[in-house]
Amino acid sequence: MSKSAPNRSRLKRIPERASYNPDDIHAILDAAPICHVAFQVDGQPFVIPTIHARLGNEVLIHGAKASRLLKHAATGAPLSVAVTILDAIVLARSVFHHSMNYRSAVVFGTGRLLDDPEEKMAGMLAISEHLVKGRWDDARAPSEKEFNATSVIAISIDEASCKSRSGPPGDEDEDYALPVWAGLLPLRQEWGPLEADPGRHSDVAIPDYLESFA
Amino acid sequence: MSKSAPNRSRLKRIPERASYNPDDIHAILDAAPICHVAFQVDGQPFVIPTIHARLGNEVLIHGAKASRLLKHAATGAPLSVAVTILDAIVLARSVFHHSMNYRSAVVFGTGRLLDDPEEKMAGMLAISEHLVKGRWDDARAPSEKEFNATSVIAISIDEASCKSRSGPPGDEDEDYALPVWAGLLPLRQEWGPLEADPGRHSDVAIPDYLESFA
Repeated sequence: MSKSAPNRSRLKRIPERASYNPDDIHAILDAAPICHVAFQVDGQPFVIPTIHARLGNEVLIHGAKASRLLKHAATGAPLSVAVTILDAIVLARSVFHHSMNYRSAVVFGTGRLLDDPEEKMAGMLAISEHLVKGRWDDARAPSEKEFNATSVIAISIDEASCKSRSGPPGDEDEDYALPVWAGLLPLRQEWGPLEADPGRHSDVAIPDYLESFA
Repeated sequence: MSKSAPNRSRLKRIPERASYNPDDIHAILDAAPICHVAFQVDGQPFVIPTIHARLGNEVLIHGAKASRLLKHAATGAPLSVAVTILDAIVLARSVFHHSMNYRSAVVFGTGRLLDDPEEKMAGMLAISEHLVKGRWDDARAPSEKEFNATSVIAISIDEASCKSRSGPPGDEDEDYALPVWAGLLPLRQEWGPLEADPGRHSDVAIPDYLESFA
């Protein structure tokens, strides 16, 4: 991935909000719990939400072997992946200058089916750890049947960009005198508190790696 | 939009989680603050996050007239729109049965540029109200120049489906005896508290329609 902007990922609108730096892009991919993957078949675009992990310069996704997205991604067809974290609605004094504070990344690449068992298991581990660090070692590992029913795809980050906005609204000079309340309406996203399965054997203690969510 | 499942939107995986009911689909489109729109050019898929509103059986998006997404959508090319609300990580006793609680909708349709000024203004109003009800009447209305610099696209909901999961994990019978904590890790998403613009004229009182976010 180059730090300059290739064609597919060059940001035309408000380019000062853009970055092509892999560290910036990786940080947003790592912070987002889910991504949206786009593909096309016979000119028809599809977009599907799924969980993911970033491992090196690839985005990993997984799912049932029979899923349309995974079967298509395994062919090596071009894909686009977006992650978006919404931070706030920007309430400006004018309708026109309303905006969002957000961090987003868009990736272009192609998929590769992980068929080496060790690499595939490492991919499953990465996706699990991306969501809940520590969970993999605690829960029961996949059986052979479960392992075989799952596909893991690594999407190369061939081109990528990210975009973000933060801070207060920017209004036209003459609008600051308007009697309109202006500022941010933040979106707080917090994990927890944990809700124990009300079913059988609910007396298991909360493990250390989940304690911060209790 | 029909209540039966046409081909593009038929859900193949875990179909019991799916619905093709317009009311269910509209409710998820209305609840999500942003959407992801996919389109394709010469076989290359693109996916872009943007704010939206649902008005009748259309999804409205808007942006700068020069934006790649809006210019492409205005041609009437096929589009796909996804909205996804993540509610919880489902922590099962086995890695394999880990899941997400979520509500998602995927729409297939084509875009139509709103060039009638009244319909275009109504579209802008709908997108504004979708984010913050009451804001439109308070903030300064778009000037002619601002109005002309903005495009609004209505995407027909020609085919759509939604999918959701809720409730506790579902494990294999023999796994319930494992000493693994199981349950939900909810993702709470809450708007607020408001952060006033620290800039000029920050003495304007918080209006009624924002008071619940104070």
